[in-house]
Amino acid sequence: MRPSGRAPDQMRTIEMIPGFSAHAEGSCLVKFGQTHVLVTASVEDRLPPWLRGKGSGWVTAEYGMLPRATHTRGSREAAKGKQSGRTQEIQRLIGRSLRAVTDLKLLGERQITLDCDVIQADGGTRTASISGAWVALRLAIDGIMAQAAAKGTPLAGDPLATQVAAISCGVHNGQPVLDLDYVEDSDAGTDANFVLTSSGGMVEVQATAEGAPFDEETLLRLLRLARIGCNEVFAAQLKATGR
Amino acid sequence: MRPSGRAPDQMRTIEMIPGFSAHAEGSCLVKFGQTHVLVTASVEDRLPPWLRGKGSGWVTAEYGMLPRATHTRGSREAAKGKQSGRTQEIQRLIGRSLRAVTDLKLLGERQITLDCDVIQADGGTRTASISGAWVALRLAIDGIMAQAAAKGTPLAGDPLATQVAAISCGVHNGQPVLDLDYVEDSDAGTDANFVLTSSGGMVEVQATAEGAPFDEETLLRLLRLARIGCNEVFAAQLKATGR
Amino acid sequence: MRPSGRAPDQMRTIEMIPGFSAHAEGSCLVKFGQTHVLVTASVEDRLPPWLRGKGSGWVTAEYGMLPRATHTRGSREAAKGKQSGRTQEIQRLIGRSLRAVTDLKLLGERQITLDCDVIQADGGTRTASISGAWVALRLAIDGIMAQAAAKGTPLAGDPLATQVAAISCGVHNGQPVLDLDYVEDSDAGTDANFVLTSSGGMVEVQATAEGAPFDEETLLRLLRLARIGCNEVFAAQLKATGR
Amino acid sequence: MRPSGRAPDQMRTIEMIPGFSAHAEGSCLVKFGQTHVLVTASVEDRLPPWLRGKGSGWVTAEYGMLPRATHTRGSREAAKGKQSGRTQEIQRLIGRSLRAVTDLKLLGERQITLDCDVIQADGGTRTASISGAWVALRLAIDGIMAQAAAKGTPLAGDPLATQVAAISCGVHNGQPVLDLDYVEDSDAGTDANFVLTSSGGMVEVQATAEGAPFDEETLLRLLRLARIGCNEVFAAQLKATGR
Amino acid sequence: MRPSGRAPDQMRTIEMIPGFSAHAEGSCLVKFGQTHVLVTASVEDRLPPWLRGKGSGWVTAEYGMLPRATHTRGSREAAKGKQSGRTQEIQRLIGRSLRAVTDLKLLGERQITLDCDVIQADGGTRTASISGAWVALRLAIDGIMAQAAAKGTPLAGDPLATQVAAISCGVHNGQPVLDLDYVEDSDAGTDANFVLTSSGGMVEVQATAEGAPFDEETLLRLLRLARIGCNEVFAAQLKATGR
Amino acid sequence: MRPSGRAPDQMRTIEMIPGFSAHAEGSCLVKFGQTHVLVTASVEDRLPPWLRGKGSGWVTAEYGMLPRATHTRGSREAAKGKQSGRTQEIQRLIGRSLRAVTDLKLLGERQITLDCDVIQADGGTRTASISGAWVALRLAIDGIMAQAAAKGTPLAGDPLATQVAAISCGVHNGQPVLDLDYVEDSDAGTDANFVLTSSGGMVEVQATAEGAPFDEETLLRLLRLARIGCNEVFAAQLKATGR
Repeated sequence: MRPSGRAPDQMRTIEMIPGFSAHAEGSCLVKFGQTHVLVTASVEDRLPPWLRGKGSGWVTAEYGMLPRATHTRGSREAAKGKQSGRTQEIQRLIGRSLRAVTDLKLLGERQITLDCDVIQADGGTRTASISGAWVALRLAIDGIMAQAAAKGTPLAGDPLATQVAAISCGVHNGQPVLDLDYVEDSDAGTDANFVLTSSGGMVEVQATAEGAPFDEETLLRLLRLARIGCNEVFAAQLKATGR
Repeated sequence: MRPSGRAPDQMRTIEMIPGFSAHAEGSCLVKFGQTHVLVTASVEDRLPPWLRGKGSGWVTAEYGMLPRATHTRGSREAAKGKQSGRTQEIQRLIGRSLRAVTDLKLLGERQITLDCDVIQADGGTRTASISGAWVALRLAIDGIMAQAAAKGTPLAGDPLATQVAAISCGVHNGQPVLDLDYVEDSDAGTDANFVLTSSGGMVEVQATAEGAPFDEETLLRLLRLARIGCNEVFAAQLKATGR
Repeated sequence: MRPSGRAPDQMRTIEMIPGFSAHAEGSCLVKFGQTHVLVTASVEDRLPPWLRGKGSGWVTAEYGMLPRATHTRGSREAAKGKQSGRTQEIQRLIGRSLRAVTDLKLLGERQITLDCDVIQADGGTRTASISGAWVALRLAIDGIMAQAAAKGTPLAGDPLATQVAAISCGVHNGQPVLDLDYVEDSDAGTDANFVLTSSGGMVEVQATAEGAPFDEETLLRLLRLARIGCNEVFAAQLKATGR
Repeated sequence: MRPSGRAPDQMRTIEMIPGFSAHAEGSCLVKFGQTHVLVTASVEDRLPPWLRGKGSGWVTAEYGMLPRATHTRGSREAAKGKQSGRTQEIQRLIGRSLRAVTDLKLLGERQITLDCDVIQADGGTRTASISGAWVALRLAIDGIMAQAAAKGTPLAGDPLATQVAAISCGVHNGQPVLDLDYVEDSDAGTDANFVLTSSGGMVEVQATAEGAPFDEETLLRLLRLARIGCNEVFAAQLKATGR
Repeated sequence: MRPSGRAPDQMRTIEMIPGFSAHAEGSCLVKFGQTHVLVTASVEDRLPPWLRGKGSGWVTAEYGMLPRATHTRGSREAAKGKQSGRTQEIQRLIGRSLRAVTDLKLLGERQITLDCDVIQADGGTRTASISGAWVALRLAIDGIMAQAAAKGTPLAGDPLATQVAAISCGVHNGQPVLDLDYVEDSDAGTDANFVLTSSGGMVEVQATAEGAPFDEETLLRLLRLARIGCNEVFAAQLKATGR
Repeated sequence: MRPSGRAPDQMRTIEMIPGFSAHAEGSCLVKFGQTHVLVTASVEDRLPPWLRGKGSGWVTAEYGMLPRATHTRGSREAAKGKQSGRTQEIQRLIGRSLRAVTDLKLLGERQITLDCDVIQADGGTRTASISGAWVALRLAIDGIMAQAAAKGTPLAGDPLATQVAAISCGVHNGQPVLDLDYVEDSDAGTDANFVLTSSGGMVEVQATAEGAPFDEETLLRLLRLARIGCNEVFAAQLKATGR
């Protein structure tokens, strides 16, 4: 029995509020139960130095957590003067995941920065960030495509032809379960994050034994749960972006 | 005529959502029109070293802005590795303002940290932060008082007997106006922030000539507008805290 | 009775030694009693990036305090690796105050940096800095104007047509007093800094209740004291710059 | 055909030189072909604050790369003043992997720090680090056990009963291959790191699509290669530690 | 012929103003010609952690330069967020030099920090700092000894029985000269700093070839000049401390 | 009697392994007994800004120590976020020493960075670094000269016509000794580092009294020992570079 009373393959309630931010070119407030992340997509013409003049664009991500998003207050990274290793690891994962489904050539010489800020945390902030970031990115790219078309210089194709979503799974009380909340996550034997595409492929698998090592069978069962969860996210993404 | 069509002494719509955060001891999402700030109050037993063992508490504040809270993306302070001078100036002002109405002896050996994070910015983020911080602080102190009473060791009195609120005023197109939004603020001749108490006193006045110097008459007219605005904030604070 | 025996509207002895530094384009050692600040004005052709090519100049300030300028040794900011919030707040105020009386167009594409270093502190270091900075700036601009005239390309006018001065006032033992020293400042109920121009205008008012809130009447009485004090500073500035 | 001429399931030559460092309690210079990492294990009685007095020990890791370990010189992290996100990600992985096979209770109140410094890089530095770290840790724990026994207070058991090893696999030119070198790594379609134990379990799986997403079949084939590779590493570890 | 017209073995005019700072336990404004350094000695009961409870004291130094102490403005180290290698090298040298003549056992469990801040620079700031630091230290120790005696617990002896002084010498236009100013220093072939004691010993010799290597003969000639210069400094120190 | 049993003028065994690094343009693993330093020379076309377009090159050095190169583990400078004063002092000395024998005009618009990383420390790491850096630099310049000649644009001459070497000497148990190891160094009364050229000149002398001041006679005896030691190093350098 899960602490939340959910079935092993049952997600928390997903909510995706598109256009939450008044200023960003794309945005989404994504909620996986009590985990709430605000994602904004900012489009800029300025590229990182090593990409300039190559006819290609870039998608990158930054991640942060409000100090009291968590049960007890954490210190503010801006005040400490540096981002933790965990923060950097997560923002690298988010950027990589979104780039995996973006055609940077079609995007052209633009950089899109995905800011994922955790307003409230209850487990699974990195996977909620990736899932919501796709919505913000989709909306931003819709805007780029509309503007380019209006100017009579349409893009040669949609730079974001595929969806990407992420979900955490884990072994809790010996049972593989989907979409861990904080209580389960703190007590999980194995913890895994999967980043999957709507065309059925995997772009990232990260599985970690918190206690005893896991076996191949367990890895595959967690993957199966992840497919169930991501399909639910894909549907929510389509709905949020009006498709 | 103001860009927004408001009368010179007309505030933007104020909204204060108490208990917005699931984890914090007190919290408030405060909206002054399109300016949205999430304030959380975190209660800790740990005091700064110079206050330990003196029977007195402390109230402090930290301030931050999400990178895309603004019209164009700003850099993330955690990634840059330091807080700007503006950020530090604002968080010092917020802390000072709330301490001005808190009886730190009555509070006892506790520290309350007020995290003010700007989710969306349209002018007046520091004054909205102070105004919302009072609500978060009030709720946190209500909890402390209730817990102490339940343990049979009630506080000797309410550490927060008075309200504090803040508002910005300025001279726009030669006319003194109340509660500047971003468009007015960018173009104001004189810019002032007032922090007032519900008992009629001033705890902070900051007036700056952006262009030509201002005179005493102007300062007093801005103060009069600030009293109008703060009275509206005081009412909203009472409503949000159920008084 | 003030600790120093001064009358409520009596300044400390002001001394302004122009040209104290052998290398700077303008400099002034300013003394308000036992508060001693060395201000240097450095003229450079290099502008901050966002100002280049706009035909306009810039005036900025940096502030520091020698570690043992104070009663007990403070830590060295260079060794700690960052400037405190207080330091940043003060240097922003100094820069703003001097820019308020400088015509940046007339100045042309030059940057003048005002370094205000406190050699000895006894209250009022920020207001002494502003008052002395005007002298250093005046001398530097005199030099720029003389050089430009000698080259046959005189400036179209004096970029520094007005004087600016600053003074602190406060309520001590219930009495409004002028030019607080450290002993008074540590014990003041209300503390205010005024930045005024020689043409009678205000460029900055900052008033803070250290204890009980203050009222409008008090604010106006402090302003009146500030006018008395600044007039004395204006006279000292003229004498120091040989006008 | 692999650039190096190796068969798909062929490792580079492994060399593990135990006791390379004169001062460390355990050390190993590990070579996977042209990738050379020096690992030292330092035993200290001082624990991190959150572990003190709980009767348990800690194993942690730090990772670094000499500036010219790579084909072109990289900047020195100490001179830049911070560790990159990549560095932090790797050292967190190394620490986690070694803790997965260490019984921290049996270790007792000691901290062992594993410093992994890349002397020369040719792909697979993180997996070589983990593999060599086991040797350094084994030697350090052998010393702790011998000392404790000599004092007549033997440890209740061996804190390191199992081996852990890591290897990278990937898809190169459409073919799953084992132990990628730099040339293959730069050009791999999918890149995976496996951390396995000598008892057959997995402690960490990280698979990333560099280009097209990968499928379950590919993940399993990479895992199979990893088992081949880790078995070879396990044998080398035993030999290096004289078992 | 030296640019300044001085004879090869002629010092600049030395001035040592004791008690320049109102707050420090010891202080000295030292002038070697146009090089002006303010040295303060701060006495604290707090020792660095590694010295506590060993019955011994500590003398340490910090060094800084006002941004416009030099011909062109340098950046402020506090604003840059770190001290340069040059600054650290100098402050280590100053601390070492003063410790060389201080009996730390006799000093007892106190730390004296010597802050050497260059107000104006014209070559030889590190040697002027050391020379002036002796005066500030002497005055601070005089105070400690007087206070201890007044309390009836006199020190067992004078912790500063010997003088230390420093001077720079160099080869300019092929000629060994004493006490280089900035013009000479910029153009010197060999540059040397000597730290000597009043009892005739050397505590530090640093000689550097700026151009061609130097020979033993040159080193000895520079040492001879340094003895002449230091004797003059010793006399000035005695005069400044009223001996 | 020296702790190691060496004669007063006896060096430790010197070993210089050229070409130790597969990637660097020049490299050397230098061993002075148990002190082992890896030096790499990296050639880049990019010059520091202040040297660009002047037809001249640059040689610079960076120094680091692996955390467990020493008897007890030191903290990692990259993790602490800054290089110590000692590190900066040493790398400045190494750079200066090598530039003293390099003709930067002949080198042309190239920068060579000498990374000196201490793999194992037993005293004399800075002098071993300088001695080994000459070998790495020699090999890198050999490569530059060969490439330039192959392109038909030979350098006008050898930019490294002279050798440079360094050695530490000191007074141990009252006796001047050559090439101190860690045990002697910790206990030395006077400690000196000499940087000499193969043509008989000195480029740097640094002598420090750790306890009692030293006299001229001692300085000269240490210099004599240094000449003996450097001659041995010059021979090893020639052998390592195949001359």
